[in-house]
Amino acid sequence: MENRKNKTLMTDYYELTMGQTYYDLGMKDTIAYFDVFFRKIPLGGGYLASGGLEETIDYIKNFRFTNKDIEYLRSRNQFSEEFLKYLKGLKFKGDIWAVPDGTMVFPDEPVLTVKADIITAQILETALLVNFNAHSLVITEAKRITNEAKGRPVMEFGARRARGFDAAIEASKDAIIGGCSGTSNTLAAMEYGITPLGTMAHSLVQFVGDEYEAFLAFAKSNPNNCVFLVDTYDVLRSGIPNAIRVADEYLTPNGLEFKGIRIDSGDLDYLSKEARKMLDAAGYPNAKICISNSLDEYAMKSLNEQGTPYDQTGNGERLISANDRVCAVYKLVAVEEDGIPVPRIKVSEDTGKIINPGYKKPIRFYDNETGYAIADVIKLYNEILPTEKYTLVHPTETWKTKEIKNYRMRELLVPIFKKGKLVYKLPTVEESRDYCQREFETLYPETRRLENPNKHIVDLTDELRELKEELIRLHRKRVEPPKQYQKER
Amino acid sequence: MENRKNKTLMTDYYELTMGQTYYDLGMKDTIAYFDVFFRKIPLGGGYLASGGLEETIDYIKNFRFTNKDIEYLRSRNQFSEEFLKYLKGLKFKGDIWAVPDGTMVFPDEPVLTVKADIITAQILETALLVNFNAHSLVITEAKRITNEAKGRPVMEFGARRARGFDAAIEASKDAIIGGCSGTSNTLAAMEYGITPLGTMAHSLVQFVGDEYEAFLAFAKSNPNNCVFLVDTYDVLRSGIPNAIRVADEYLTPNGLEFKGIRIDSGDLDYLSKEARKMLDAAGYPNAKICISNSLDEYAMKSLNEQGTPYDQTGNGERLISANDRVCAVYKLVAVEEDGIPVPRIKVSEDTGKIINPGYKKPIRFYDNETGYAIADVIKLYNEILPTEKYTLVHPTETWKTKEIKNYRMRELLVPIFKKGKLVYKLPTVEESRDYCQREFETLYPETRRLENPNKHIVDLTDELRELKEELIRLHRKRVEPPKQYQKER
Repeated sequence: MENRKNKTLMTDYYELTMGQTYYDLGMKDTIAYFDVFFRKIPLGGGYLASGGLEETIDYIKNFRFTNKDIEYLRSRNQFSEEFLKYLKGLKFKGDIWAVPDGTMVFPDEPVLTVKADIITAQILETALLVNFNAHSLVITEAKRITNEAKGRPVMEFGARRARGFDAAIEASKDAIIGGCSGTSNTLAAMEYGITPLGTMAHSLVQFVGDEYEAFLAFAKSNPNNCVFLVDTYDVLRSGIPNAIRVADEYLTPNGLEFKGIRIDSGDLDYLSKEARKMLDAAGYPNAKICISNSLDEYAMKSLNEQGTPYDQTGNGERLISANDRVCAVYKLVAVEEDGIPVPRIKVSEDTGKIINPGYKKPIRFYDNETGYAIADVIKLYNEILPTEKYTLVHPTETWKTKEIKNYRMRELLVPIFKKGKLVYKLPTVEESRDYCQREFETLYPETRRLENPNKHIVDLTDELRELKEELIRLHRKRVEPPKQYQKER
Repeated sequence: MENRKNKTLMTDYYELTMGQTYYDLGMKDTIAYFDVFFRKIPLGGGYLASGGLEETIDYIKNFRFTNKDIEYLRSRNQFSEEFLKYLKGLKFKGDIWAVPDGTMVFPDEPVLTVKADIITAQILETALLVNFNAHSLVITEAKRITNEAKGRPVMEFGARRARGFDAAIEASKDAIIGGCSGTSNTLAAMEYGITPLGTMAHSLVQFVGDEYEAFLAFAKSNPNNCVFLVDTYDVLRSGIPNAIRVADEYLTPNGLEFKGIRIDSGDLDYLSKEARKMLDAAGYPNAKICISNSLDEYAMKSLNEQGTPYDQTGNGERLISANDRVCAVYKLVAVEEDGIPVPRIKVSEDTGKIINPGYKKPIRFYDNETGYAIADVIKLYNEILPTEKYTLVHPTETWKTKEIKNYRMRELLVPIFKKGKLVYKLPTVEESRDYCQREFETLYPETRRLENPNKHIVDLTDELRELKEELIRLHRKRVEPPKQYQKER
């Protein structure tokens, strides 16, 4: 979406109070590396389709504290004038590498890496996370749903169930990247060049009063868009008969096509089967059956198993506001000393929260024969991996190894900003949708399935794993404070 | 939030194609009544705290199709030039009644009623729903969480887990209405005049390398905001001892207060209890313990039951993007004929989806002795309810009755727009928070509880119930289409 307002202050307040500390320490020019990564795939699935890069690029391009922002910060009486002056002149001058929107990504691997002066890098945290978290969720849910549609068009009907206006607009775009055919959201359609879609609502029938008259009026004003909503009063006794009557009496005589019907309540399997029979018997085998009403991937899987004869779906609430979330985090992984990124670690009470240290690159291995993605391996930025033969080693259960051959490797992160300059050309929404689908097809079928999916392998190189273990050991030693401040055990 | 961009086109496409039909029918000046209502309380709770009115007012004040909008619609080749011209001149000229943000509301009662020309009323649907659905969810979740905090401050830390930038900003404001003390979201704080809050992140400790040095540096640059995050390496062996050391060596000697610590991982109960002992033993009984890490109302209830000595919480993901949704709908309930609002109905395959017809007013009855809300009764707009004695009747199980006396009545919907003019003065965020809390306190304790809450009564007056039954009967008769289009049974 173009022309977003400057929202530089969309950052957690502590990023700024910490910024003051970095400034006071005289370390404002120190270069830090931060990774965005997540720990758990949402929705019980085997993959996450990444998103939010478009929004992140927009944020960073417009990253600039306005006079109003500075005035506001000054009013908090918490920041020095020197620091405020520094903020006022701040621009993004660093590097960013990230996965393109629609990339299949997995836990613990960097999906975005920032290299920038510590204050800028710290301030970016909130925006980078909200963008990745919000948009990956919708794209992933859309991919799960569209995959269950088995080639049938899925229309995004979720605006009214989104978490606000912009959330609705951006989610429409995300839904398209995840494979939807179009959106009901007119503003999103205009902003992103998506096809606006829709049928009709119950209110038209209620307003006109008589269902036949309502359908006829709708057909006359929308001759090329005749999908009738048939469940205002009674699908089989009223809705479908009235739709057929309008087709017989108005559409067919005028050479217009009877596009189809939409069913939005009741037992969608039973009603679709009956509807199909009635439409066929009336001579409209090409009239499509569109279904809607809280459809998600599980409902659609169930309908598929029952052989429900639906032709397209309208998916709203469960597509646009799934009952789960992506919880990506943003962690310092290295600090530059004499031009070298020196790894840093965070050791946590929760072992699962210990981070992978250092400036790293995730590499995806593909099987040359099948084209499937075999595994991801995270390496340190300056490691060179062998091209002929590689031994995968589980990151903690190191006795689990697997030797692979005949593969190709791909670096997942692509350059987005170089020295503050955008070096990435944003694909169109359609390009991202095609890319996301190609990405999806490289996953093993076992990884794509809805329930108990196979876990895609994400390993560390030996060098990275050893570095991590060494840093943990070092920290356990260094952790002891002076005697009088130690807790007795 | 001020100065929102014109987003009139934030409407489902079918609102516009139906608009074309209404226009072609020559009914553009016909006045329709629509209700917003919901059918199920989310989060398993006993109440919904309403929201989104502020955003709805903003949308309607700016309701105006721009030239760009019209150009876009023209490009779809679906709308007549006459209709596009009509849209271009369209302004909101109708009436709106709604519950103020923070009002406790219940299933099946109108929370907002629109009276406007049919085309305008139809187009408003999407915006009214997204606003109510998105904002009610956050305010309700915030109220559930802050109620479990038992008077302790709850900080909203959720920006990074929101569904986009604006979703984050508006949700911060919603969280305050629901009882939170402040937000970490700096932009939201500025836009809404909320207190910006925060402690520090792990990255500061990692960046400085030595935890003690990091705490000391943070204390020096933020002398009045000294809450140390103690779980970067080891809470009890490193974090708390280092915090105490900085307090002993820097804060106390300089007359500064040791505000407290934050624990963001591990067993929050165990760590808080140990931390409390250590802080007390070191002479800092006033140093507060702030906890965070995926806290929701259930986690807080559990900590309360364990007697965890926490003083405040930081709530993120589960506050700002709860695993549920509000699914309010927007239904035509009446059409004006000769100045009279004539009731309309929608009869559905799903009995629960049959609407309450007519232009209505929900009335809340309060017990004069206890102050508690006894029940809501939905009446037709022109009914007058008795002030001395009233018999509540269950809307479908009509043998369930209850006679009440000594009550006062309150009309829930207040006028927002009159003939297109805003007649409502928006309260401040703090006023809405106080109002929401007062509303909450009028609910029976059994209705407020987290699990298996008591159901607040929402009844219909006899007149409304009889009207509804009559309209259903009429529609079942009228539903039969001509013989040849009837399904054989």
